[in-house]
Amino acid sequence: MPDTQRIPRIDSKSLDELMATVSTFGSTGDGGVDRPALTDAHAQARDWFAAQMRSRGYEVRVDAIGNLFGVLELAGPDAPMIMVGSHLDSQPKGGRFDGAYGVMAALAGIEAVREAARARGITPGCNFAIADWMNEEGARFQPSLLGSSVFAGELTLDFALDRRDGDGHRVGDELQRTGYAGSASAPVPNAYLEVHVECGPHLEREHKVIAPFVRYWGALKVRIEVTGEQAHTGPTAMAQRKDAVLGAAYLISAIRELVDQAPDTLHTSVARLEISPNSPNIVPGQAILFAELRAPEMATLTWAEKALESALPGCMKRAGVAGRIVSIDRRPAGRFDARLVEMTEAAADALTLPRMQLDTIGGHDAIPVLRRCPAIVIAVPSKDGICHNPQEYTCAEDLAAGGDVLVHMLWRLFRADGDLDRAREDA
Amino acid sequence: MPDTQRIPRIDSKSLDELMATVSTFGSTGDGGVDRPALTDAHAQARDWFAAQMRSRGYEVRVDAIGNLFGVLELAGPDAPMIMVGSHLDSQPKGGRFDGAYGVMAALAGIEAVREAARARGITPGCNFAIADWMNEEGARFQPSLLGSSVFAGELTLDFALDRRDGDGHRVGDELQRTGYAGSASAPVPNAYLEVHVECGPHLEREHKVIAPFVRYWGALKVRIEVTGEQAHTGPTAMAQRKDAVLGAAYLISAIRELVDQAPDTLHTSVARLEISPNSPNIVPGQAILFAELRAPEMATLTWAEKALESALPGCMKRAGVAGRIVSIDRRPAGRFDARLVEMTEAAADALTLPRMQLDTIGGHDAIPVLRRCPAIVIAVPSKDGICHNPQEYTCAEDLAAGGDVLVHMLWRLFRADGDLDRAREDA
Repeated sequence: MPDTQRIPRIDSKSLDELMATVSTFGSTGDGGVDRPALTDAHAQARDWFAAQMRSRGYEVRVDAIGNLFGVLELAGPDAPMIMVGSHLDSQPKGGRFDGAYGVMAALAGIEAVREAARARGITPGCNFAIADWMNEEGARFQPSLLGSSVFAGELTLDFALDRRDGDGHRVGDELQRTGYAGSASAPVPNAYLEVHVECGPHLEREHKVIAPFVRYWGALKVRIEVTGEQAHTGPTAMAQRKDAVLGAAYLISAIRELVDQAPDTLHTSVARLEISPNSPNIVPGQAILFAELRAPEMATLTWAEKALESALPGCMKRAGVAGRIVSIDRRPAGRFDARLVEMTEAAADALTLPRMQLDTIGGHDAIPVLRRCPAIVIAVPSKDGICHNPQEYTCAEDLAAGGDVLVHMLWRLFRADGDLDRAREDA
Repeated sequence: MPDTQRIPRIDSKSLDELMATVSTFGSTGDGGVDRPALTDAHAQARDWFAAQMRSRGYEVRVDAIGNLFGVLELAGPDAPMIMVGSHLDSQPKGGRFDGAYGVMAALAGIEAVREAARARGITPGCNFAIADWMNEEGARFQPSLLGSSVFAGELTLDFALDRRDGDGHRVGDELQRTGYAGSASAPVPNAYLEVHVECGPHLEREHKVIAPFVRYWGALKVRIEVTGEQAHTGPTAMAQRKDAVLGAAYLISAIRELVDQAPDTLHTSVARLEISPNSPNIVPGQAILFAELRAPEMATLTWAEKALESALPGCMKRAGVAGRIVSIDRRPAGRFDARLVEMTEAAADALTLPRMQLDTIGGHDAIPVLRRCPAIVIAVPSKDGICHNPQEYTCAEDLAAGGDVLVHMLWRLFRADGDLDRAREDA
């Protein structure tokens, strides 16, 4: 194959260096990072990354919900735009790969395509953009996928700006504070690609390196308020107590029991509790539960929602408290773009990387982005399936493999002037 | 009855004046006081009270943990000593009666006995002391009952001096700062009496005015650590999860169920939870539970501790997590002195004050003092049972009634030369 036809590879040394540097922001000292959205550590990581993009000639844009973009207009303002990205925020005491990998690979990947095009004197037929979505994790501000959901028109800007963390800080104010309350318009993509660590054990277990996510599970994110009555834990008679934490405990148990009725297709959790006043010798007056119910099919989710509603009154009555569902964020189940799935598989095959198909259960920014354009998430292995934990790990070889698949796909799209159908046919 | 036989009454006007003045120190302007231990307001109240005692000829002593005493040596250094007291510290934004009433009544009560003896030319056969215990409330420094526990030998002086408030200030330093790091030896009492507002609804509900506390409930304050494993709430298979909050929920439920086996004599609560990382989409890696188990009998507490230990492994296993009891603060249950209970009832009857018996579930300085000598707490009504709140209220008539019972008992003890058995028989 003549050199001009050879598909470029990612510069794995450059990718490693980017990963090493981004991992310093909010480093927990044990391999992890603590970089929730709009914390100082998050802002520092974004400042650094914006400078990286700017120094390479990308036009840096921040939109009103704080999504950070780098636009590389190679082919004029009317040419198709291929967007690549992920997120720089992390869970509290999270891993250093989740999100950051996709953003670093976006930069290294686009740079590889750009460099090959320049070296070979190819006239570009499409533009590129990098996206660093604001608050993918939803650890500090709920809901997750906040920036990409506003981008996709699933959430209004006002709603998103008004979200508050556990200390009452508003997203809008924290955007101002960290310098990410932008006013630029977001780039309009014709396709969106994201590489991400699997956050699950399947690739490793099956000895595969690449998997396009084919389906995404749906989720109900339910906030439930349990209201009791503050009293002294000493003299107050047991029969008179209205203990919000006791009601919460019964409900947590009931939510877990739902799984027994749909053992392979329902995941449930109550992973956050806000207890008031949370003093050892005051019967708790209030508990707010953050429950999640996830399933690959809408029917299961619909059933689970009804089952939760039915279980609530009994749990509350048993503790003498009142409970109500404050909000339900319903995230539908669905599928990623089939053409991008095919292109991912073709790229893996061309690179002789063992591949399989996976579903994603966790949320990804690519899911809301699907409302705007074809989108895909490409997974690489997570050691022992560990995720949202400082021990999260993916070896450099697998990071490079994901980068190579990304570059392969970007090159195909670039050579097809950003036309997804043509790119797929060429593959 | 000849005048010399009549039992003196408290000077209720003097008691009201003392209450009015002491309520000005740390006044919150709405009837309450904000006078936690070793704050400026607390020191000012103590300075004023020490001056009151000194001006009446009491020898003022401060011991090394800052207990403030006033000793009235009427019958020579070897005569029995009757001690009366309570505490001048309050909860933050607490009530003006809790503690202060007992100290004011101690002074007015001893003065009434002293005055009657002088007027009637009785040769004293015992001495009196007033005690203002340091940090009864435990609001600023934990544990509560700090001064009386050092006095009783339950806590070492070094441990007590080294307690710190939420801002890191040491008890020892704050004693120095406020001028209450003393070096005097504490008086050695032969009996200890304390009047106190009930801090509960029972007297009012039963239309009674006086109640000796007969039993004090014991408590186990148990800290339990549940260890799971942080993971993503999405993809992690349900069977692989080690959810610390789920384990905590099972345990909270099990701790509540213990009450069903001892319905009238066991109070349990889990009122504080520390969850890590407490993010809606991370399976919680750790939960720390602050449980309390209270009962009036040691046997019940001993049973409850064993039952909790037995329930723990099953709850943990069900959630696939590990649990361990990190610490248990065991506060024994017990009884106040039966002779002093009898004398309280005889005094109430003589004064035609409606009476009943009560247990105390909250702590009182008289409980550690029981290690040194017979002791009693005598309760008067709390309006609506409100306590630890600026709305705490007891009417002047009820304050005087408690004062009269106290004077009655002090007179009997005085006339029996401080001999408790003789005083009881005379009643």
